[in-house]
Order: sequence, then C-alpha cells, then structure tokens
Amino acid sequence: MEESFVNLPTIEELEALIQKRKFDELHQLLATIHPADIADLLDELPSESALAIFELLAIPTASEVLDETGSLVRQELVEKVDDERLADLLDELPMDDAAEFLEDLPDEVADRLIGLMEPEEAEEVRELLAYEEETAGRLMTRDVAALRRHWTAAETFDHLRALDDAETLNYLYVVDREDKLIGVTPLRNLILAQPDQTIESIMARDVVSVPAAADQEEIAEIVARYDFFAIPVVDDDGRLLGVVTVDDVLDIFQEEVTEDIQRLGGSEPLDQPYFAASLGQVVRKRIGWLLLLFLAATLSGAVIRHFQPLIDAAIILTIFTPLINGTGGNAGSQTVATIIRAITLNEVRLGNLWRAWRREMAASLILGVVMGVVGFARALLWNTGYDIALVVALTLPFVVVWSTTIATIVPTVADHLGIDPTVISGPMISTLVDASGLFIYFSLAQAMLNL
Amino acid sequence: MEESFVNLPTIEELEALIQKRKFDELHQLLATIHPADIADLLDELPSESALAIFELLAIPTASEVLDETGSLVRQELVEKVDDERLADLLDELPMDDAAEFLEDLPDEVADRLIGLMEPEEAEEVRELLAYEEETAGRLMTRDVAALRRHWTAAETFDHLRALDDAETLNYLYVVDREDKLIGVTPLRNLILAQPDQTIESIMARDVVSVPAAADQEEIAEIVARYDFFAIPVVDDDGRLLGVVTVDDVLDIFQEEVTEDIQRLGGSEPLDQPYFAASLGQVVRKRIGWLLLLFLAATLSGAVIRHFQPLIDAAIILTIFTPLINGTGGNAGSQTVATIIRAITLNEVRLGNLWRAWRREMAASLILGVVMGVVGFARALLWNTGYDIALVVALTLPFVVVWSTTIATIVPTVADHLGIDPTVISGPMISTLVDASGLFIYFSLAQAMLNL
Repeated sequence: MEESFVNLPTIEELEALIQKRKFDELHQLLATIHPADIADLLDELPSESALAIFELLAIPTASEVLDETGSLVRQELVEKVDDERLADLLDELPMDDAAEFLEDLPDEVADRLIGLMEPEEAEEVRELLAYEEETAGRLMTRDVAALRRHWTAAETFDHLRALDDAETLNYLYVVDREDKLIGVTPLRNLILAQPDQTIESIMARDVVSVPAAADQEEIAEIVARYDFFAIPVVDDDGRLLGVVTVDDVLDIFQEEVTEDIQRLGGSEPLDQPYFAASLGQVVRKRIGWLLLLFLAATLSGAVIRHFQPLIDAAIILTIFTPLINGTGGNAGSQTVATIIRAITLNEVRLGNLWRAWRREMAASLILGVVMGVVGFARALLWNTGYDIALVVALTLPFVVVWSTTIATIVPTVADHLGIDPTVISGPMISTLVDASGLFIYFSLAQAMLNL
Repeated sequence: MEESFVNLPTIEELEALIQKRKFDELHQLLATIHPADIADLLDELPSESALAIFELLAIPTASEVLDETGSLVRQELVEKVDDERLADLLDELPMDDAAEFLEDLPDEVADRLIGLMEPEEAEEVRELLAYEEETAGRLMTRDVAALRRHWTAAETFDHLRALDDAETLNYLYVVDREDKLIGVTPLRNLILAQPDQTIESIMARDVVSVPAAADQEEIAEIVARYDFFAIPVVDDDGRLLGVVTVDDVLDIFQEEVTEDIQRLGGSEPLDQPYFAASLGQVVRKRIGWLLLLFLAATLSGAVIRHFQPLIDAAIILTIFTPLINGTGGNAGSQTVATIIRAITLNEVRLGNLWRAWRREMAASLILGVVMGVVGFARALLWNTGYDIALVVALTLPFVVVWSTTIATIVPTVADHLGIDPTVISGPMISTLVDASGLFIYFSLAQAMLNL
C-alpha cells in the first residue's frame, strides 16, 4: 500500500529495458529507487533478470538491496554472484546486518565469505556471531560515537566529522579511559552548547543500558517504553560495546508479533518469511500441536461414549453438540486473544488476575445468557420440544462462563510461571473446553429429561 | 521485565514516604525516575497517594507522566487536579500528545482545558483535532526543523540553536518560500559540511512524504520499510505541515497488533487498554461475532439432523465428531494465522495465491495422512471395528485439506477485495469447516458402511 506515495517502475518496464539491453537507462532508473524497493522488485522478477539488475548496482546500493531482499532471491544471489563481490557488499553493511546475513548461510559458505572480507570487518563479524541469536550482542552495531568527558563541544564536532559511519548520532555516549559508559548527551545538547563547554557539563549521568546477553524482546520493550531512538549495550564491566537502534527494534516487533500470532493460531512459529520455509519445516511446526490437540479431543469422544445410552434414547441431542462446542470455543478464543494481549502489554498479571477474572465473568454471564436465549429459540425452531430446548438454553451460559474462566486463568498463570502465554492458543482453549462442555450438556440432559 | 535494568522504589517505599510526609526525600527520589516509570507506579498506587505524588512533580515531568499514565489514573487526575495546572501540563507536551489526551476526554472538559491553554498551543491543538483520528495529521508534531536552501551550514546551526523544541533533528527538512517541501538532509551531513556550504549543496531532493490524511498503518509500513527515524507530512500543495516520528510508529504497531490479535481471536478489537474498557463495550465487541458464528454453527446441526437415520443405526459414529471437527478447525486455525501474517507482511497476495495454495496443499496432505493414521489407531483402540476406523482414517485427510484450502483462499481474497483479512478469524474458519467436515464424515460412512 505504500506504493501510493512512491513511484516505482513495473516489472514489465524493467524486463523490457533488460531485453532491449538499455543498461544505461536502467542504471539511471535504478539510481532513483530506494534499495528496499529495488529488493522488492527483485523478489518479483525472474531470476536471470534479477541477477542482471543486481550486477548493475553500485556497491553501497547493492549491499542495502542484499540486506533487504527476500530469502529466495538471496539464496540465488549467493549462488550466482561472485564471492569477491559478495564480500565487498558485506564489508559495506552495518556489521549487525552482515552477521544476520551470514548466519542464515551454510557454515562453509559463511566461512568462505568472511575469509574474503576486510580483516577488520571480518573480525567484527566473528565477534558478533559469537553472541547468542536474538540478544543485544547480536543486534548491536559497534559504529557508535563514544566521547570523553573532558572534550569540548568544538573538539567533539571535529571528532564526529572524522567518524566514519556512526549508525546513530541521536545520542552521543560518554566513556571513561577504560571504555566504561559514564554518560550520554543528546546531539541537541551538543548543538546548543558553547564551543568551549565540556561534554561533562552537558551530559546526563544515568544512562539506561542493556547487557550484551539481554533478550531482544526486553530491548524492544525498553526502547518502546522510554521512546528511545537507541540503547547502548555494555559488557559485564560496564564497558560500551555498541548500540541497538530503533529501526532494529521495529524489526524485532515485526518478528515477535509474527511469532505470537502463529502461536495463538495453534502452531509453532516459522522463524522465516512464508515462502522461504521448506515444506518439511511447515509440517514439523504444525504436526506437534495437531497431534496433541487430537489426543486432548479424544476426551470429548470419551464423554460421548460415556453418555451413549442417553444419546441412544434421545438422539436429537447430538444436533446441538457442534453449537455447544463451537460457542464455548469461540467465547474462549475471544477471551484468550484479549487476555494474552493484555499480558504482553503488562496490563494483566497474576497480581490483578482476580480483577480481570471478575470482569470476564460479568461479560461472559451476559454473553452466556444471550446465547442461551438464542439457543432456546433455535431449538424450538427445530421442533425439539421444550425440554430439550431448555437443556440447550441452560448449557450455553455454563459453557461460555467456563471457557472464559479457563481462557483468563490459564495464560495468566502460564505467564507467571515463565511460560510464554501465547502457547495457550485459541485451538487449545477450544479443545480444553470441548470435553467439559459436552459433559455439562449431557449431564444436564440426563438430570432434566428423566430418561 | 525491563525492571531488571532499572532500579525502581517499591509501592511500599513510596507509601511509607507519603505517610511520614517526607516530601523532600520523595521529591529527590522522583527526580531520579523516568516519567514512564513514575506513570507505572501511579497506576499501582491507591488514588490519594498517586495524587499526592503527582502534585509533587515539576511541570515538565508531570506532563510526561500524564501522557504515559493508564486511563484509569488519568481519569482520576483529570477530576482531581486543578484545571489551570492541567492546562499548563498540556502546554508543555508535544502537541500531538496533547491532542490525543484531549480527544479521550468528554467534549466539555476538553473545551474547558483548551480554553485555559496558551493561545498559540490551543490553536495548534485545535488544528490537530480537526484531522481524522489515526491519520498523519493527527499523529504529527509541528515542532520540526525547516530550513531554506540558501542558508549556510553555519547559519543553520544558529537556527537550530534558536529552535525551541524540534522533536527530531535526525532529518532537517528544506522548504521553499511557500513552505513547500523541497529537500531533506540528515543532520550528519550538516555536521560534516564546511561552515560556508549551503543547504542546497548537501540536501537530497527526493523526499518521501505522506499527506495529512494518510492512514497510520500506511505510515508505519513506510517508516519500518525504509528504516526512517521520521517522515514529513505535507498538505495537498506539498507544504510541510509537520513530522511523524518513529516513537509514534512504535505505538501504532502496538495498537495495530492488538487489534489484529483480537480480530483473529474472533472479536471486534477493544480500542483501549484492557481495564479501561467498560463492561458494555466488552460485551458489544464480542456478541456480534458469537451470534454470527452460532448461526453458522446451526448448519452443522442441520447436517447431523440430515444423517439422523445413519446415526441411529451406528451411534458409535458420534464419538468421533469432536475429533473430526476439532482437527479440521485446528488445521484451519494454524493456516489462517500463518497466511494472515504473510498477507500483512506483503508476502502473500492474490497474485501468488496459487503458489501459496500449492504449498499449503502439500503440507496439509502430509498432515492429513498422519492424522488419518493416528485416527485409525485411536478408533481401533475404542474397539469400533475396522470399518468405522477406516471411515475416520479417510475423513481426516479430507477435512484437513479442505479446511486448509478455505483458510488459505478466504483471507487472501478478502484482502484483495479491500476487506481487512484479520476479520477471517480462527473461530470463523473452524465454524465454516465444521458443517462440511461432518458432511464428509457422514457421507463417507454412509457409502462405506452399507447401512
């Protein structure tokens, strides 16, 4: 949808230029397009055309395109593009992006490319790759502006001018002679300062920083919470290692949300773009939960089996089992989505579970009674007689209240125990309440129908 | 979890200080705490203590706390805090935040407070409130550094020093004499420039901007896509109106994700924090979908009714209906979560639906066959005999493939038609496939069992 604000050539236009070998024109055209958009176009083009365009790009653009492109095209580029050129492109990238790129490659290919990189960059990438995935150490860039407290504003400007490629200048971090992080100053303060003012006189001393082992989700929370543009990363002795910037945090959010949504749908998350995952991976991510839920669902079968004589006597009861299971599952699924999101946003936790539960109880009682009335009417329309209609009408509020209770308590307790609450998916709640819903239904029927 | 990196006083410590009336100590303590954390503490404290602490805060801190605090505390503060002070706090906030705050208040309270604000700020807030909710116009701040192309770097520094409170200095926007946006320069370029170089010589001419009416979701996509720290907002004539910064984009992501997850759970999204929504709102957001899904589920009842003679003859068949419905629903729910996320990330769309469908077919065939084998074994364990076990074993692959197909095609087509695909929830897919799953099951049974 962003295309409405950016003019891009169509795939056909690009293909035509390639076919007519109008490389100069193509070159000029590409120079006006943002690398993220070029990457998108490459994803759409047939692979020879994509390769032809990629070869035309200047190194700085090509490196950004490489970073942004989808994993299928990327795989192709790694196979087809000369190793020397690839290494040059990696040298050009921020080292956190280079590390991310290399980590997705087979080890021997990654080692070969690192071997061809500039020694300094190669060393840095190796150090980044030594940190665990999804930690601050892996996400950070070392291109950070580190100042000394006794520098004047004028000296600092000279230093910044000489800096090669600090990824962010929003915050200038101040370190002591042992590289320990002792302060921070927004660039704004530096601009406002007199040329002879020292950094010490304009810096803030309490800097929020994260250790290199900090989990990416925690980092994202802090950055979003305090509206930071960047957060410094320190080692165990408080030495400044690098900085994680807000654009990385946006990517983390995208990733975490994708994982949460897939888990809530009842599957292990695919940790890659949709088309990049192999068939085997897709099957593996789903089969475990399907089997587990299948086994849980046999409990419902057992309940039906238990009530077989009753059902034999009043087979009409079976008409309502999908309605009762469905309504219980739907009410539970609605609640679990709301509660899990509230847990993620730190609104609901074990400490106020009681308050959340009362609230859900009130809502589910109202919803249950409405559904009961509708169920009663529906049963009468099926000519089941008043007694069966009454059983259905009484069952529905019970089932809605019960499934809402489960959907409120289970994720909150899971979160408190350190289990990611998103593993408590809608399908899981539905399956958990199916058997109990049927049990309530048939028990009420047995009690009320005098069979 | 971010608490691990920040030292905060406990609620008890704060309450003790208030009770002992140690306001000086409290004042000093509060000065060391980030406003976002103070806001959190206020959310936890009893309302008199929260009010006492709020009154102790200096205006700049108090205004940020007001902006960050939960809606329940906020409501209380609006009632208890003097109007004059509230107006002062609003004057201090970035005007986009002030507008957001005022919009949640009853109209007469908002009007009263705007009347008490500084005339200039009041005017700006009124202008922001004139834009639609969730658009660029509403989210932007007008505190933006606008330069002229003929200025030198030295003049620009002087200008920046004189600027009162530009929200971002990452990008300096260049406008012509009619305020039309003509260029942009990263602050970094300005620092690297010679004092007598002109802005024109260092600026880039193609600036990505959004119109004031642009939807917040589009803005978030662009900012995330191009790794921007901010994006300028222009009117219909291309005049620079303001800027939307990346911290607002992070908030948009949080909001949109919350909405998506609630919709996927089968409910209308609550557009407020969990505890801030009233009981009536919660019920209204859920009842529509519950009723609609209930009506759809009566179709399953109709299928069962249709096969009543068959069921009468082989009542054992009913044991498996929850297993079959559950497995179909779960497979559909897994797929819909994956596909909807892929649609949101622009990976799947109508143009490559065929490719996505083939992929899902392959996965669901494998999953279906595995489930069929497991179902066969489970049936034999229940001593149903080979014929019934075979019916179950054959039904499961059909149901899994069918529900996966629905879950792949329906959201993609909805998206193409301009319908938000997240309204196609897991519960909706389950309900849609329930009736057809039962139909497949009983039809196969009828054909194979010779009853």
